[in-house]
Amino acid sequence: MGQDAIDYKRKLAEALRAVKDEGRYRVFADIVRHRGSFPRATFHTPEGKRDIVVWCSNDYLGMGQHPAVVEAMHRAIEEVGAGSGGTRNISGTTHYHVELERELADLHQKEAALLFTSGYAANDATLSTLARILGDCVIISDEMNHASMIEGIKRGGGPKRLWRHNDLAHLEELLSEIDPAQPKIVAFESVYSMDGDIAPIGAICDLARKYGALTYLDEVHAVGLYGPRGGGIAERDDVLEKVDIIEGTLAKGFGVMGGYIAASADLVDVVRSYAPGFIFSTSLAPVLVAGVLAAVRHLKASDAERERHQERAATLRQMLADAGLPVMMCESHIVPVMVGDPVTCKQVSDDLLRDFGIYVQPINYPTVPRGTERLRFTPCPVHTDEMMRDLVEALDQVWTRRKIRRAA
Amino acid sequence: MGQDAIDYKRKLAEALRAVKDEGRYRVFADIVRHRGSFPRATFHTPEGKRDIVVWCSNDYLGMGQHPAVVEAMHRAIEEVGAGSGGTRNISGTTHYHVELERELADLHQKEAALLFTSGYAANDATLSTLARILGDCVIISDEMNHASMIEGIKRGGGPKRLWRHNDLAHLEELLSEIDPAQPKIVAFESVYSMDGDIAPIGAICDLARKYGALTYLDEVHAVGLYGPRGGGIAERDDVLEKVDIIEGTLAKGFGVMGGYIAASADLVDVVRSYAPGFIFSTSLAPVLVAGVLAAVRHLKASDAERERHQERAATLRQMLADAGLPVMMCESHIVPVMVGDPVTCKQVSDDLLRDFGIYVQPINYPTVPRGTERLRFTPCPVHTDEMMRDLVEALDQVWTRRKIRRAA
Ligand SMILES: Cc1ncc(COP(=O)(O)O)c(C=O)c1O
Ligand SMILES: Cc1ncc(COP(=O)(O)O)c(C=O)c1O
Repeated sequence: MGQDAIDYKRKLAEALRAVKDEGRYRVFADIVRHRGSFPRATFHTPEGKRDIVVWCSNDYLGMGQHPAVVEAMHRAIEEVGAGSGGTRNISGTTHYHVELERELADLHQKEAALLFTSGYAANDATLSTLARILGDCVIISDEMNHASMIEGIKRGGGPKRLWRHNDLAHLEELLSEIDPAQPKIVAFESVYSMDGDIAPIGAICDLARKYGALTYLDEVHAVGLYGPRGGGIAERDDVLEKVDIIEGTLAKGFGVMGGYIAASADLVDVVRSYAPGFIFSTSLAPVLVAGVLAAVRHLKASDAERERHQERAATLRQMLADAGLPVMMCESHIVPVMVGDPVTCKQVSDDLLRDFGIYVQPINYPTVPRGTERLRFTPCPVHTDEMMRDLVEALDQVWTRRKIRRAA
Repeated sequence: MGQDAIDYKRKLAEALRAVKDEGRYRVFADIVRHRGSFPRATFHTPEGKRDIVVWCSNDYLGMGQHPAVVEAMHRAIEEVGAGSGGTRNISGTTHYHVELERELADLHQKEAALLFTSGYAANDATLSTLARILGDCVIISDEMNHASMIEGIKRGGGPKRLWRHNDLAHLEELLSEIDPAQPKIVAFESVYSMDGDIAPIGAICDLARKYGALTYLDEVHAVGLYGPRGGGIAERDDVLEKVDIIEGTLAKGFGVMGGYIAASADLVDVVRSYAPGFIFSTSLAPVLVAGVLAAVRHLKASDAERERHQERAATLRQMLADAGLPVMMCESHIVPVMVGDPVTCKQVSDDLLRDFGIYVQPINYPTVPRGTERLRFTPCPVHTDEMMRDLVEALDQVWTRRKIRRAA
């Protein structure tokens, strides 16, 4: 940059220093998973490669390694090649897209579904478009909602009310204060990914309906994982028909990449017709869509992965509790262990990687509130008892070495 | 939707009627390309399947079908499986990502590059983040800029000036009116995808520098296609070092999916550290990154695809002009044929598909200004002389049948 009047270099350097001073500058670990032997992977460091066990993947069920998924992807590449070559409107709609949208609508028992390049884009585009189209729409947003929902709500430009996390009384208080004639959307998640707690979907939807609000539910950390066909917590709780818009990702439980919404035909058609983030971007590559189709179909029919997943999470949680480690108790598949300090949290993560070949990222602010820094373990069906024993043993040693607080 | 107080159904239906009344309701054509025989494809209709020739793909060089790309994707699936399983920070950085970022930085002769899930996300996240970080930053935006840049600029929330398309005098006028101490970014494209005209990058950058502005260049319709190594128009014009930030897609010239920026190390690090649209979304699937790596490397070394591509575009343009059809003359690879009315434009497209098996989307408002509705042909290296003769013959018949204006 040769501009002289304004010191852009200094402005950028200051922004970076601020991140570093807060202890939240991130260095990405360069890892390569091994298909067939996941959660084992290779960690590339400047000093060379080493073998590790991954404990923080969101490929929760290991579907990214499933033979049916892999096989479907190979076939799609052979049949149609790499990319779609266009936006959905201009040559980028393939039969794979049409079929997957049908499959996802069916999964959530909605009239229609719409694919996006990511779950982030789905939240951002849908919430901003609905706010604009419905006109002076208030969004009542759970205070723990994901960044992609927050961005979509900001982009929409309408009024927003923050509602205390999963607090039904506070939600009702806010709803009762808004003009009954004003359009409103209650936006929330099912499984909150950092604490692993689960929203009372049915009760929230009942309140929303009582006050004339639409409901928007992010099931990103639940689709594929819960419900008899993998339809998420709303399916598990048998409240699918109470939720107006369900949003999900194709990158976690389904193991591939992409995002979607499922809702009434008209609502989906409005987002399809108005959202720039949907209209003006190349559609998902057919190879991804084909892989997801196989994953969704498999998980609609098979409960084995879901059962083993829950069992693995419960087992690890119990082993950590038995060792006196401060594991957070929750009913979902997420296993957070509290550290409570950003520097220690990073050190523990570094120790685990360097001394034990265990890879788990430290979760610091702004992903979680300050003072609640933690390690977040995501046991998968493929994590063995032995790997769990190794993990607990390693944590025990590091906890002693670094003098970290044990469970109360 | 059972909400009664507010008639959401009616609001949605009205929004859809508005799109339909304007003649811009879109029905997506469901097509499946055939690897190995692209641009041939199968069109799925409610009445059955039929063979077509695709004339509106943005897989400009056919790299989505290239053996090196296809082979690299198969290998990546075998090696690591389907998805990355995480955001870049939480287990989603693989060695493929690290290598591709290096390769793209080198392609544009910048210190660093950063991958996004799409070119749309790259524009949206980078422009909004820079505007916020630089503080009260004015964005001077070419009036023909793509929706993704417009959304990023809006999201940034700072002041914006619209600059008349490729008009250097107007750009200088605007720049000279802004406080010299205020941070500014001049944002523009190289090849404008609907008219096919090309920006005078060097002259724009010289003006920007004179007035202390950073330059942000969208080379989405040029990367892979222009320049001795496929670095785009900035490389072709030998002005790479004058551009501060180059943005590109992996879904057009490179034939796969995804987007990126290339810039100074600090600038890239700021976007990496601050942009929610980068931080909080699952990283590109390794299979896509592996395919792009092969495409970028191939096109750095081979000029054959670029030469053939330019020759095919020039040939088709000449054939259309010789037939008296109103083809727009421009120096790029885009071949627009003017219709000038949305209803006729859609009819011509329908006629071509139904009677001749030729697939080209009508391009209507809001993608282009009203009254300039057109067909936009994108000849690829794989379109043969015979396909071109068939196309010109078909257009000639439809032009006569529908009594459309010929060239002046
Ligand atoms: C709750 C929640 N919603 C949405 C997303 C975005 O989904 P994607 O990774 O598909 O962009 C994430 C995380 O990635 C998330 O945790
Ligand atoms: C000029 C321009 N910029 C950015 C994009 C978005 O790129 P992508 O398709 O990778 O999202 C497009 C179109 O798709 C475009 O035409």
